[in-house]
Parts: sequence; C-alpha cells; structure tokens
Amino acid sequence: MIRRLSIIGLGLLGGSVAKATRAVSLAREIVGVGRRRESLEPALRDGVVDHVTTDLAVGVAGADLVLLATPVATLERQLPAVWQAAAPHALVTDVGSTKAGIVRAAEELGRARPLAFVGSHPMAGSNLAGYAVSRADLFNGATVILTPTDRTPLETVKRVTEFWEAMGGRVTVMDPATHDRAVAAISHLPHLVVDALVAAVVDLDPRFLEVAARGFKDTTRIAASDPIVWREIFQQNREALGEALGTFRHALDRLERLLASGDDGAIEAALERIRKTRAELG
Amino acid sequence: MIRRLSIIGLGLLGGSVAKATRAVSLAREIVGVGRRRESLEPALRDGVVDHVTTDLAVGVAGADLVLLATPVATLERQLPAVWQAAAPHALVTDVGSTKAGIVRAAEELGRARPLAFVGSHPMAGSNLAGYAVSRADLFNGATVILTPTDRTPLETVKRVTEFWEAMGGRVTVMDPATHDRAVAAISHLPHLVVDALVAAVVDLDPRFLEVAARGFKDTTRIAASDPIVWREIFQQNREALGEALGTFRHALDRLERLLASGDDGAIEAALERIRKTRAELG
Repeated sequence: MIRRLSIIGLGLLGGSVAKATRAVSLAREIVGVGRRRESLEPALRDGVVDHVTTDLAVGVAGADLVLLATPVATLERQLPAVWQAAAPHALVTDVGSTKAGIVRAAEELGRARPLAFVGSHPMAGSNLAGYAVSRADLFNGATVILTPTDRTPLETVKRVTEFWEAMGGRVTVMDPATHDRAVAAISHLPHLVVDALVAAVVDLDPRFLEVAARGFKDTTRIAASDPIVWREIFQQNREALGEALGTFRHALDRLERLLASGDDGAIEAALERIRKTRAELG
Repeated sequence: MIRRLSIIGLGLLGGSVAKATRAVSLAREIVGVGRRRESLEPALRDGVVDHVTTDLAVGVAGADLVLLATPVATLERQLPAVWQAAAPHALVTDVGSTKAGIVRAAEELGRARPLAFVGSHPMAGSNLAGYAVSRADLFNGATVILTPTDRTPLETVKRVTEFWEAMGGRVTVMDPATHDRAVAAISHLPHLVVDALVAAVVDLDPRFLEVAARGFKDTTRIAASDPIVWREIFQQNREALGEALGTFRHALDRLERLLASGDDGAIEAALERIRKTRAELG
C-alpha cells in the first residue's frame, strides 16, 4: 500500500497509472503534477487523483512513490528538481521510452543524495496520446521493462516490480543499454520505417492512398503518432537507432538481391523463416 | 442473377466469393474448380458450392461468370484453358494482385476468340489463407479495383461492377499499369519492408522480439503471410516494386538526414505531415 503516489504528467501513461492504481486501491492518495492546471483538471474531476499542482516540489513532497510520466526529453530536465524535493524514503521511477540517459542522470544525482531509483518502461504506448485516452487496464498484460544497474538495490527493483504487477504488468529486467538497443529494434526503427513508407507513397502518388486496405493501415498505424514525442525519442536513442537502421538496410538489400536471383526455393525459404518468426509472436 | 458461376480456386478469396454470392442468392448454381478434390470437399459439404470438379474445362463449361481465384502466377497459366472452355456469352474475371500480365494475356487470347474479360482485384487479402478463413462478408466495404483497357466494352465493366457491388464491394477503376504501381506502393512495398524489419530484428538479437508490443505486432502482421503467394507477387510486380523501393529508400534517407540535422522545427513539421496523412486514412 502506497500512502502517497505522485505522478508527474497525466497523459496516456500517467493518467492510466492513476486510474489503474485507483482501481486496485494501491495508493491512499494520488497527486497529479503538471505544467498547466487545465490539463490536470479532468483527472481531478474524475476522482482519479486527489490533488493537483503545477508546483513540482509541492507535488513530490512527502510521496512514497514518485512516477515521472512526461515526454522523454522533459524527464531528464525535471529529474534534478524531483530528486531535490523527494522525501528521503521515496521510491522514484519513470516511464520513458529510452533509458540510458535518465538512468545515468539518476546515478549522478544519487552520488550527492542517495535515493531509491530504477527506470521503468511500460510497453503500452499508442499512437494516441493524452489523458482522454488513458485507461485503468492499459498495463494489463503489458510488458514493463525495468532497467536496474549494478548499483541498484534489489529491494528497489522488487518494490517497483510489485507496483507494475499490481496493475497487471509483466515485468522483465534489462540493463539500460540493452533496453535502448531492444526498443530501437522493436519500436523506434519500425516507427521510422513506416514514417518513410507513408512519405514514399505520397512521393509516388498520393492518390494511391485511396485504395489502401487493412494491411497498409495496420502496418502504418504508428505513423499517426505525436510528432514532438517521436522527434524526442528518435533524438534520445540516436545511437541505437542508427545501428538498427544499418541492420535494416542490410536486410532489405539482402531480400532485394534474393528476389532478383530468381531462386524460387531460396526466396520461399527466406520468406518462410520471416513468416514463422512473426507468426510465433501471436 | 447468374445462372452458373464457376470459381477456380476455393481459397480465402474464391471461398469468400462463393459464400457471399450464396448469401445474397446472386447465383443459381456455383461450381468449384480446383487441382485436388480434397481441398474442394469442405465447400461442397458446407453447401457453399453445388458441384466440384478437378477438370477445368468441365468446371468452366456453360458458366455465365467465370472467376479465376488461384495464386497470381497460376492465373496466367490457367487462362488459355479457361478461355477455350468458356461459353461464348461468358464473362471472365479474376482476383489477382497484379494486373498488367493477366490483362495482356487476356487481350492476346481475345484476338483469336473475343470474350468478355476485365481484371478485378478485391483488396480484401489477409495474411491468413485458405477456404477455412473465407467469409461471406469479406468484401463488405472492401475496395475492388477493376482494370479495363481502351478495348474493354463498358458493358463488361458494368456487369463485373454489379457483381462485386452485390457483395458489398466498393468498385474503383484503374488502368492495369496504374493498378500495379498503386499496389506496389500500398501493398507490395509495405510487405517487403516489414519482411526486412522482422529479418533485421532477428539479425540484431532475436531476444528483442520477446518485448515486442502491439505496435510492432500490428506493423509486422503482414510478414506472417504465405511465402509462395508472396514470392509470386514480388516477382510478378518486379518493375513497379523496384520503383516503389527506390522511392522508399530516398524517403528513409531524407528522414535520417533530417533527424541528424538537429533542426527540431523541421523534424516536427515532417513528422506532422506524415501523421496527418496516415490519420486521414482512418
């Protein structure tokens, strides 16, 4: 049981954590923190949070658990102020899509003032954003990656694991660098590639979009995501994304050469390996 | 009202046409034609077709409407035999994913023996294949592209349009070459690109797939498609796919350079144009 949970940023993820913890009575008191009061009001009206404030220090004070749920570039800017305002017993985590930067920042702050921190990344994003689309069941069955380092106490990992599991999350652990490479591969690269796919169809002939069917719509759904959020993610994870992009280009060149070879058996074998890999994901 | 409808190939598309025409009593008699009797039996048992045969000439004889619903490379091989066996008053169409080849073949056959033909492409495919996944409502709301040429009588286009509209299809018309460029852009290129995406993640680290979330699954769903069907489609539409692939590579390079530029405003503007384009598709 959390006595006071402070959530900084009540968008899709922050709002969903508030709703989910409320639904399972995980926190006695929930405080919503944000830059503009208007964007906090709906959660207050819904009874999803008990208090709201635009003052970060006030919002964080006295909380057992502080969750940073702002966009990835904002997280790092806010962390020093959160660190300063947090109670000595506070547990701090975040929901950022990249982890190396925030974890490094937390470890630097931790040298001056030790505080329990571990990075979290609930893989429950959507191309839709904002409190209006937040849901109490967003984390139900979702993978949540925690990114402890050698210096993270096991107790911290255990407590944050219990927090996400109480909302239905399935927690898995990776070091921050591996996390960033993994999400570059299975999230950031796909985003960039389908962005280019949509741009390419427009370049070829925008009228072709008029006959796009379900396959194209499913494939490119993530291209309809918030431009600022994704500009920040692409920039934050530049290095791992660059590696993934290079590997993708090689894979595409290899497939193109294989198709040009006219070796039907080899083409079908390669497509069958891909089909099987994808089908196994369900 | 069709007196006799012959469907060659009772897979997802052929089976769905049989079920859909039956559902709206569009044909008095439906004949299913296939290579192996075992694969025709389920439709006969379901009462979805009235007769089945493995003899193409027998199956086509006396039909008012002949629908070729075999894989794209098989279509062209079967067309001469269909043409020879069809009644003089028969209307012939197909469901192939590429159209320049089949239309050219039909026009050549038509010089020796005039027959009413127009190519069809119902955009209702799926990564799942076979009669077992066929449905009476598959074409309900689906785009169906017809590909007449200068030599196609308007009456032929009208009759085939009515056929698809009776099943809920929304018919649109393109010349065969434009059709092949359009589907290269919105279907074949996306397939090839997500095939490369799945292959790239395996190359990077197959364990990364363990944290793949809904975004990745939606984006790559079409990679779990039949390898033979797609080997044939990629080969049949090689030229238009090559053009689309070149345009895609340019779009990806352009996005990568833009991200490297660090020009936040320009990056967000480009991502916003893409977001808007995709969001408008619904």
